Amino acid sequence: MSHKEFNTVSLIRKKREGETLTKQEIQYLVRAYTDDRIPDYQMSAFLMASFLNGLNTTEAAALTHSMLHSGIVVDLSHVKGTKVDKHSTGGVGDKLSLILAPIVAACGVPVPMISGRGLGHTGGTLDKLESIPGFTVDVNLDRYKEILEKQNLVLVGQTEEIAPADKRLYALRDVTATVESIPLIAGSIMSKKLAEGIDALVLDVKFGSGAFMKKHEDAVKLAETLVGIGEEFGKETIAYLTNMEQPLGNAVGNWLEVKESIDCLNGGGPEDVMEITHLLAGTMIYLGKQASTIEEGIEKSIKSIEDGSAFQKWIDIVEEQGGDSSVIINPESYPAADYIEEVSATGDGYITKMDAFAMGMVSVELGAGRRAKEDSVDPAAGFILHKKIGDKVKEGETFATLYTNKQEMLKTAKKGLQLAITIENRPPEILRQITHKVDKNGLHNYGG
Amino acid sequence: MSHKEFNTVSLIRKKREGETLTKQEIQYLVRAYTDDRIPDYQMSAFLMASFLNGLNTTEAAALTHSMLHSGIVVDLSHVKGTKVDKHSTGGVGDKLSLILAPIVAACGVPVPMISGRGLGHTGGTLDKLESIPGFTVDVNLDRYKEILEKQNLVLVGQTEEIAPADKRLYALRDVTATVESIPLIAGSIMSKKLAEGIDALVLDVKFGSGAFMKKHEDAVKLAETLVGIGEEFGKETIAYLTNMEQPLGNAVGNWLEVKESIDCLNGGGPEDVMEITHLLAGTMIYLGKQASTIEEGIEKSIKSIEDGSAFQKWIDIVEEQGGDSSVIINPESYPAADYIEEVSATGDGYITKMDAFAMGMVSVELGAGRRAKEDSVDPAAGFILHKKIGDKVKEGETFATLYTNKQEMLKTAKKGLQLAITIENRPPEILRQITHKVDKNGLHNYGG
Repeated sequence: MSHKEFNTVSLIRKKREGETLTKQEIQYLVRAYTDDRIPDYQMSAFLMASFLNGLNTTEAAALTHSMLHSGIVVDLSHVKGTKVDKHSTGGVGDKLSLILAPIVAACGVPVPMISGRGLGHTGGTLDKLESIPGFTVDVNLDRYKEILEKQNLVLVGQTEEIAPADKRLYALRDVTATVESIPLIAGSIMSKKLAEGIDALVLDVKFGSGAFMKKHEDAVKLAETLVGIGEEFGKETIAYLTNMEQPLGNAVGNWLEVKESIDCLNGGGPEDVMEITHLLAGTMIYLGKQASTIEEGIEKSIKSIEDGSAFQKWIDIVEEQGGDSSVIINPESYPAADYIEEVSATGDGYITKMDAFAMGMVSVELGAGRRAKEDSVDPAAGFILHKKIGDKVKEGETFATLYTNKQEMLKTAKKGLQLAITIENRPPEILRQITHKVDKNGLHNYGG
Repeated sequence: MSHKEFNTVSLIRKKREGETLTKQEIQYLVRAYTDDRIPDYQMSAFLMASFLNGLNTTEAAALTHSMLHSGIVVDLSHVKGTKVDKHSTGGVGDKLSLILAPIVAACGVPVPMISGRGLGHTGGTLDKLESIPGFTVDVNLDRYKEILEKQNLVLVGQTEEIAPADKRLYALRDVTATVESIPLIAGSIMSKKLAEGIDALVLDVKFGSGAFMKKHEDAVKLAETLVGIGEEFGKETIAYLTNMEQPLGNAVGNWLEVKESIDCLNGGGPEDVMEITHLLAGTMIYLGKQASTIEEGIEKSIKSIEDGSAFQKWIDIVEEQGGDSSVIINPESYPAADYIEEVSATGDGYITKMDAFAMGMVSVELGAGRRAKEDSVDPAAGFILHKKIGDKVKEGETFATLYTNKQEMLKTAKKGLQLAITIENRPPEILRQITHKVDKNGLHNYGG
């Protein structure tokens, strides 16, 4: 690795003028920033110039490389098999990791999964896992490798040792209005995923009202950038563009989503959840070389639910990571929220739209999420949707049930859900769940 | 003045999205930054967003207002007459202030002139003044007013009390590649000039190889922004676009330029210097209400040289500010540089181009300028040009004479000047000295 010094002001100027920086120049900036040789005020000027003038895939890959190598890159070469993970850009009711991770592991592909916590309107896999009594997501590196080797699966949180430069850069972006940049987002995601020790990656890039990327075209760009970076690192990467115009499945909230995942693993999950789950799981099984095509992977995914092997893997990993599997086997034994209330429709007609962002914020109000990083979450809080886009409702008919321990939030939460749905006379156009696939050959329409 | 608080990240985002900020928003940013309530890293992100997305004249005026009122705004209401100053955007061999200030003062217009030091390829008026033995440019505010009242003229340096916010912002811009932004440059210039207590202002905006703005169109934009800001503050402001494709006059270097100024005030100055001097001085005399038209002002300017009143004013101000007027009366008595060498042409033909920037850098090498703010300057160093663009030269013929106390720099300086001139077979097109005038009515072609 070269340790060439550059003139920081010249590099900022170069990006300001819309020129392309070399790998060495990008790496110098990130390394010198992490080593406190470049002050925050120069990095923030560079970030704003990058935000406005863009970074191409090679620059984004160089950024990723530098952030990745600012910390530990886990070596999983002792674990047999092709290690595959999935990353989702986040949404409301997105419990897919909880379902597909045991499926893929049960199908023989090692899944080293490092997840995050929820922030803002989106939930986080770690919070969902921690709603299972005793489940621990904080393990050291040795234990991480040990669990993976034993279970073909590990579900943990990010440690301080993973991509510390990304953590610092993200904190700076947060206070300088430079968060929503596609190459910067992509670099942040990929540096953390590549640090896990994976061989291949499946990405679920969401678009719509509940997604980080509201516009489909932005989600496409993000997917292309992510796949481009993955390929630059020699890791086969496949992304899907999936719909987040309404919450995924029926359950939103930590334990409520775990419960829905158990239903899914027992063969009783909602159709929208299962369609995406099998596609992502099938793709992971294919990338993990346990199927010769994605279609064959999907068949294996379906079979792992039918034969109970995925559910068994779920029980195994819960027990391995200290969780109480009795609530998995008998979810009804889980302590319910103090307040459970029905929410009724305010008119007759078809549900034509759902503001998934607003619904995510309602779940935060009920206690399921965080406004700030320091907040704690209530595992029992959230809501269940009984109706989704396209369903008919009558005035006064229940379309959702709220769960909370905060009585004072019931009224505004109820109102919030009612305002978040649009009821019209005509049925809406059918939502496409999965619109595109992005792989090393580019963007493809996904005929679904 | 409102002290409303805003969310800094939202304001950065607003400018990032290319929106226009309100006066209150701009004023909040500058004030909070100066009060250390906004950190450097947020201000630098804002500056880069402003650099790339621009600030309109109203935003630039709000910026100027905030920087101006971060320090003292001198009250000159006790001094009779309409106070007028001139500002030049800087160039090589630009000694115009030394000539026009005594002319305008001699014609009855008070000239409160606060100048800067040279940095990079351009010289500074203060360094030129200080080449006169004893001349002091550091005076307090009371003495500043006293000199002006007595002499109708004062020539000093900027104090810490003038526009401290501009000083802080400039230092940040310097290290974040956000210097070369027209509205930011304009705000910086105008906040300092308006703090002097002037009633009207003449601007000499230079374009070409030796100017800060290489492109004519950028110089036009800067002139328009400067005039726009001046008018927003109710100060009549007139700008001229003048040519800096070659050094102005023949002398480059501090004492050498003072000497050329003395020649000018004695009626023997180079034509290019005198044309711009009389135009700027005439305009100042007009704005100072001592002439009813600019043309009449020019006539008065010419007359003040013919009748010796401008030269006498020059002697008076030198003496008033502690300088030794004997070197003004008898410039040949000034101690010469240790090394004086001729530079000869390397070919036959017409001089068609001069790289004024490179020539400015040669003068720095000889000791006349600064690479860094802390450097000291050699008053005797510099060069005299005997040929300018359009002149015929023969191989081996002297076209310049170098003056320096650094023997070791002679060789590279000589080579530098030779490389800076282009000799071709055909005569060049005639350079237009003054291309445009900008006033409150907009941009006008200057038929010269």
